[in-house]
Amino acid sequence: MAAHPSLGTVYLVGAGPGDPELLTVRAHGLLCSCDALAYDALVPSPLLALPPPTCHKVFVGKRRGHHFVSQKSTNAMLAQLASTHKTIVRLKGGDPFVFGRGAEEAAHLHALGVPVQVVPGITAGIAVPAYIGLPVTHREAGSSVTFVTGHELVDKERHGVNWQALATATDTLVIYMGIHSLGMIVAELLAGGMDPATPAAAIQQGATALQKQVIGPMAALPQLVQEQGLQAPAIVVVGKVVDQRIPACAPPLPKAEMPIPVPTTVATIQVS
Amino acid sequence: MAAHPSLGTVYLVGAGPGDPELLTVRAHGLLCSCDALAYDALVPSPLLALPPPTCHKVFVGKRRGHHFVSQKSTNAMLAQLASTHKTIVRLKGGDPFVFGRGAEEAAHLHALGVPVQVVPGITAGIAVPAYIGLPVTHREAGSSVTFVTGHELVDKERHGVNWQALATATDTLVIYMGIHSLGMIVAELLAGGMDPATPAAAIQQGATALQKQVIGPMAALPQLVQEQGLQAPAIVVVGKVVDQRIPACAPPLPKAEMPIPVPTTVATIQVS
Repeated sequence: MAAHPSLGTVYLVGAGPGDPELLTVRAHGLLCSCDALAYDALVPSPLLALPPPTCHKVFVGKRRGHHFVSQKSTNAMLAQLASTHKTIVRLKGGDPFVFGRGAEEAAHLHALGVPVQVVPGITAGIAVPAYIGLPVTHREAGSSVTFVTGHELVDKERHGVNWQALATATDTLVIYMGIHSLGMIVAELLAGGMDPATPAAAIQQGATALQKQVIGPMAALPQLVQEQGLQAPAIVVVGKVVDQRIPACAPPLPKAEMPIPVPTTVATIQVS
Repeated sequence: MAAHPSLGTVYLVGAGPGDPELLTVRAHGLLCSCDALAYDALVPSPLLALPPPTCHKVFVGKRRGHHFVSQKSTNAMLAQLASTHKTIVRLKGGDPFVFGRGAEEAAHLHALGVPVQVVPGITAGIAVPAYIGLPVTHREAGSSVTFVTGHELVDKERHGVNWQALATATDTLVIYMGIHSLGMIVAELLAGGMDPATPAAAIQQGATALQKQVIGPMAALPQLVQEQGLQAPAIVVVGKVVDQRIPACAPPLPKAEMPIPVPTTVATIQVS
């Protein structure tokens, strides 16, 4: 549908993985000038201080296992904001088009005639490993890296991941949202023929002040994660690249924390 | 080796894929304050105007098929700059740790005691598709995306890509540097069981003023690319996500061009 001239524009903006300095120049400019901001729990909290004081801020966070109703509400909220505001930033952790449902929000808004534009951000699957000095590609460790979500056991509508095939087809695996299903994932990768000694890393709240990681052979990773008490959000990397890490080149950790606490008063919207 | 106190710090900085506004806030700050800049051909040309006039700029570009000598020279150049300058930015297209050899440069510098730090950037494999409204993940189109280099036929030292296994193991393929080998890649994917009708896109010089793309079934992509005269640098996307694109949400193209022309006078360095 053609964009409606009286409606504001919704910018689907990637906030990056945690460090506020990983925001893009374009995202920074939009945040500093928007008159409405819709954000969820996976954005660095200092970014919420960037918009002008008059900006209307709305929390549209999701909780694990409660996606579908709130995705519908988020879509409706964004469309409503476009009818009352001029520049709406929908701020999403990482990149809007990498496991972020940004495309679903864009399609929904576009179908309603709401002008919408994507603003790429740095995805956690690349930057979080970098914050422990771990490159997701290296000539000595292969030519491919697969980003995959470990969430599908919870999210029944998602197509299944062929973990057994990925075990040998790709050189590096970067798993988003994989902490809760790590035991199953490792079992599937082993069944698919992956060497149990393949080096692996799990990084909790990477690129934030609360970053914490464990490193070890992939077969032992679920136990290490449990022993160290690592929790979501986390990124898991499996592959020879883990042995190529140079901890000394990791950027300093920012003071920023993420995810932000869920506000006690959450804006709600009536979905007609 | 411990960092040497008298040496400057080399920042391996990701420049993003083309649009200068996709630079991070951190990279912007470093570029505006560095006293030495080493850059190659795959960085947006407007970024070269950011450093102060006194900044010492060095072109360390590579040409296809001529990697190894110049990678060695680049490593030596960076180490030399660290002995004469305080803040050295090594600017790389995209992200330094995604097919960028950033880890090799970091390891080399670290071994020499040169302080080195990675600054993630937005990788072309995610942002270039976004600039035609194409999300690399979508719940309706799978749960995995594999980034892979199509360069290995040229680069004999690189481990081989198992294209036939990837054909069915992953939902989406994003191929960097794949234009020259596209015929071989498509043949391998078909041999691995990929549906020839799988939608695909090739995007030349994405996120720049010279962006150009073709879209069609993967089996026809090599011919379409040839007919339209697409050239490197380009990103190829293969998978059902191509049908999920929303062209209207693509960001406006910047005026910036990339790659920059190779300077006629290229700084050289004596490698002892």
